[in-house]
Amino acid sequence: MSTAALLVIGNEILSGKVRDTNSAYLSVELRKLGVDLERILTIPDVVDTIAYETRQMSERYDFVFTSGGIGPTHDDLTMDGVAKAFGLEIVLNQSMVDRMVRYSKGPVNDAMKKMAMIPEGAEVLDVGGLWFPVVVVENVHIFPGIPELFEKKFDSIRDRFAGIPFHLRKIYVREQESDIADTLNLLLKEFPQLMLGSYPRINEQDYRVLLTLESRDPEYLKRATETLIARLPEGAIHRVE
Amino acid sequence: MSTAALLVIGNEILSGKVRDTNSAYLSVELRKLGVDLERILTIPDVVDTIAYETRQMSERYDFVFTSGGIGPTHDDLTMDGVAKAFGLEIVLNQSMVDRMVRYSKGPVNDAMKKMAMIPEGAEVLDVGGLWFPVVVVENVHIFPGIPELFEKKFDSIRDRFAGIPFHLRKIYVREQESDIADTLNLLLKEFPQLMLGSYPRINEQDYRVLLTLESRDPEYLKRATETLIARLPEGAIHRVE
Repeated sequence: MSTAALLVIGNEILSGKVRDTNSAYLSVELRKLGVDLERILTIPDVVDTIAYETRQMSERYDFVFTSGGIGPTHDDLTMDGVAKAFGLEIVLNQSMVDRMVRYSKGPVNDAMKKMAMIPEGAEVLDVGGLWFPVVVVENVHIFPGIPELFEKKFDSIRDRFAGIPFHLRKIYVREQESDIADTLNLLLKEFPQLMLGSYPRINEQDYRVLLTLESRDPEYLKRATETLIARLPEGAIHRVE
Repeated sequence: MSTAALLVIGNEILSGKVRDTNSAYLSVELRKLGVDLERILTIPDVVDTIAYETRQMSERYDFVFTSGGIGPTHDDLTMDGVAKAFGLEIVLNQSMVDRMVRYSKGPVNDAMKKMAMIPEGAEVLDVGGLWFPVVVVENVHIFPGIPELFEKKFDSIRDRFAGIPFHLRKIYVREQESDIADTLNLLLKEFPQLMLGSYPRINEQDYRVLLTLESRDPEYLKRATETLIARLPEGAIHRVE
């Protein structure tokens, strides 16, 4: 069972100028793969902060993902931060320059070369159709902030992270959450391994609470779901998925 | 100049079952108010983790906001976590129970009473039209995860956080980011206090990069913007806002 953390790097997210969609994307995809995403942290473009948080995450989680800060401009400091996290130098990666020359229409300028400066000894994973690879340092996987590229790149290497997937059931309930809370607490006493979520909804016509039941063990999930359904008041269930 | 941090609490976000929109909302609103949001952290529903991170944030930032984990169910642990962060007991707040009785149609049950259990000595800020107030412990402001309620509650007390607002200009540029990176770096050398953002866009027809220039000093911003516009290649600018 693997764990993961995501480090989102960028003043533009914190100041509300750009909306982060990579967190939501990665949380859904990792769940499908059976990886526990345990932390999402958004921080400014500051080398020391990137270095400190990368190091902490690298020690605590199996997989670390970073989003953003790998372009050619002044505020693109992720490579420097990750290098500093592990006490590595930043060096020009010739295979990336070569690829850049092949993909680029014009000449390769200094700003473009900056993007080929990566931590020494980093693993470079080829991604079909894009000149910029996924750079991996220790267990840290460096992704771009642009959503289309983040998603395309993650998708191209997703198999590396595959674990034991979760099974999920959803129950849409017409009752108030406070009226079924005791029933849920009792269920958890009997099924302590069950991951049970209870999410009130305000603007839905047909139900007031979405319940989610999850387990890696499909038999266990089946028993817990049937037990809960039998205990909810008559007419309380809008639908089950 | 105030700083802020947001702690998002909830397994449902990390596992991709519910999409967090409160972070984006708060980042935009704090920016309008002139507050620097310096960190957004999403963590699981675990009391010790909530306590540790709340404490850290409370020491480092002027304002801390929490989102989620204040309902009546087993996984609503924010009050416990915040209390533990400051070594406080959790006690029944009678004014909240009274308000609940007034607003509720049916009787007040145990699950509802759980929602009135808050850290001792907490400040309770009335929010018009809702029975549940905003609970404040030290500099930690406790908000619900449900977006409609989060937004309504924040809006009702936003004036408490007003600082010196930022001024923002946007320049939409047709060039590749790597072709203007040197120009941007030069600008920053001359205007070191300028907050300059450069955000490549892939799926836009009319421009390739969005540049944002920000400052709390409108005169400084004006000079920096004019300097940059004069230096960009002819025809490079799609529009200025």
